Amino acid sequence: MTPLLPEGFRDRLPPHADAAAAVEARVLEAARLYGYERADPPLVEYADALGSRLKDGALTDAVRYVDPVSQRTLAIRPDVTAQIARIAATRMGHHPRPVRLSYAGPVLKLRSPELAPAREWRQIGCELIGLDSIPAAQEVVAVAVSALSAAGATGLSIDFTLPDLVDTLAAGPLPVAAEHIALLQDRLDAKDAGAVAAIAPDYLPLIEAAGPFDSAIARLRAFDTGQVLASRLDGLAAIAAGLDGVALTLDPTERHGFEYQSWLGFSLFIAGAAREVGRGGTYAVMHAGGAEEVATGFSLYADAILATAGTVDRRRLFLPFGTPPEAGTAMRAAGWVAVAALTPADTPEAQLCTHLYAEGEARSL
Amino acid sequence: MTPLLPEGFRDRLPPHADAAAAVEARVLEAARLYGYERADPPLVEYADALGSRLKDGALTDAVRYVDPVSQRTLAIRPDVTAQIARIAATRMGHHPRPVRLSYAGPVLKLRSPELAPAREWRQIGCELIGLDSIPAAQEVVAVAVSALSAAGATGLSIDFTLPDLVDTLAAGPLPVAAEHIALLQDRLDAKDAGAVAAIAPDYLPLIEAAGPFDSAIARLRAFDTGQVLASRLDGLAAIAAGLDGVALTLDPTERHGFEYQSWLGFSLFIAGAAREVGRGGTYAVMHAGGAEEVATGFSLYADAILATAGTVDRRRLFLPFGTPPEAGTAMRAAGWVAVAALTPADTPEAQLCTHLYAEGEARSL
Repeated sequence: MTPLLPEGFRDRLPPHADAAAAVEARVLEAARLYGYERADPPLVEYADALGSRLKDGALTDAVRYVDPVSQRTLAIRPDVTAQIARIAATRMGHHPRPVRLSYAGPVLKLRSPELAPAREWRQIGCELIGLDSIPAAQEVVAVAVSALSAAGATGLSIDFTLPDLVDTLAAGPLPVAAEHIALLQDRLDAKDAGAVAAIAPDYLPLIEAAGPFDSAIARLRAFDTGQVLASRLDGLAAIAAGLDGVALTLDPTERHGFEYQSWLGFSLFIAGAAREVGRGGTYAVMHAGGAEEVATGFSLYADAILATAGTVDRRRLFLPFGTPPEAGTAMRAAGWVAVAALTPADTPEAQLCTHLYAEGEARSL
Repeated sequence: MTPLLPEGFRDRLPPHADAAAAVEARVLEAARLYGYERADPPLVEYADALGSRLKDGALTDAVRYVDPVSQRTLAIRPDVTAQIARIAATRMGHHPRPVRLSYAGPVLKLRSPELAPAREWRQIGCELIGLDSIPAAQEVVAVAVSALSAAGATGLSIDFTLPDLVDTLAAGPLPVAAEHIALLQDRLDAKDAGAVAAIAPDYLPLIEAAGPFDSAIARLRAFDTGQVLASRLDGLAAIAAGLDGVALTLDPTERHGFEYQSWLGFSLFIAGAAREVGRGGTYAVMHAGGAEEVATGFSLYADAILATAGTVDRRRLFLPFGTPPEAGTAMRAAGWVAVAALTPADTPEAQLCTHLYAEGEARSL
């Protein structure tokens, strides 16, 4: 039998679709209260323009087609962040900085990424464009925490990383040949001590400097005898100091997924989620002519958050056949989901109702 | 200079994107109170399966691509209604009828449709699957009215039509050769009296039976001497009777856009909108094996509704640089959009703030 939908695509049915929309609304409302206003770019862009704002190769996973109107290749977005960067750099280029933008919408991939079977998912996020300072990072992390809490998530933990750590050390006290840097980063990320020892043994202590935040940062400070990392570590400590009730870890050489972040990266985890529910950090937005602008932001994956949600409370009032429409209107105005029987044969059970309208009031069934 | 986006696509920027999301949320909440729960189908389906549920030719406007995984052709949805019908007929086929579903999401076309330049827009709607009776139509029209009112629309008017009118008359008192029916429908829709007279002069009075609801239905009743239309006209009258404060018209031979509706179709208009903001009616859902199920529903176009919205009220509180984070948290908990200065140089003006936080309170600027 043919499956209803292609691999990697799915329907979200009641009551989960309402729950997903509610999670998204709560996340965006939490961000709105911090001043993040929504931007809503289209599903489709010129492929070359979108590709120039995505990290190398990201567009190879995008669905592309030839536009019969312009005769140019268009791409369905595989990521919203690059679109928000475009908006900040162009249409909102004249706005005073920082610019705070939020977004939510579907993204599509031609093939599913490694480890995850989905080819379409909803990306929700916030970007603070024009700043990548410690206060900027503090705010963005606070918005992410507030958004996840508003979405009902518990057991929040954040894993920090320092994406440009190796670049910074290699350009300073621990030189590494340029052609070896990418491999060193990769082997550090993999905690492959043998390979790291062969490439640049001075970097071996970094493998041990991962784990609970306080001990990891202490090891990093001990490692950083030349104070090259001092401003980054002070920044991390300042961000961590403001995060009461959030479990914190530090994996300074984690690199996968943070290839384009600058000094700060972080992954967000919640209780019950099999994998991270979001990711953020500091990065650069490209302007026309090659100029760059700093930015800080995060993205959340609504599906990963929802997977941890419990059962949905469905309180529904059944209006027996013949109930005057005014009665339904009054009960709805009082906040009830009021489901009218449209035939004499309809029943509260068939309509998944928990309450019955009788003699002017709602009675529990 | 190259445009930022392909023709027919656009960014929605602050504050309009938040306003659009709010309109959509209010529409869906209005429907939820009537028992309509959200379903969220994917952007992508197998092209042949989706095409089989769309009206003839609708898939020619869909963006299609070959799936490298299944080697089959996939289509980006040009319409959500067909997907909701699929869900109702398959995954929710076992649910007691009627099934009430709502939806909201983007749809995409390869070319823009006639009269409208957009190639992507948001479709919002409700479908009541399993009924196409007068009570079903009354409910669906009431939900549409409630949704538009909740979205802030004023000056609502509804134009009703009878999509299967010519088929019904031709099968009964006013026979027309099968090969002439489509042309007759088209010429009646165009109010082309000369052509109608040449094809089937008995149908000429229908051209005059369009206009304000009461007079149009009176003319139709006078025309319907054989009482073939009596149940339809009684149904229309019953629907109209419940619609206080809504301007009603009837154009019984309007056909364009209602090719697949059965006995009832309606277009929704609001003050300030250049064109209709939604459309609905009764129709049939296809089940596997060719069985059909009746249904009633409507779709709204959020952009058309938003085009009538006035300015957006932006009440924003500026937190001067150095304001303790707890103060921001407290003001946000009190409902304020509280925008923190992250540098000493930031100003309320730059952050579009209307209020300033000083001495523990919000002061109007």
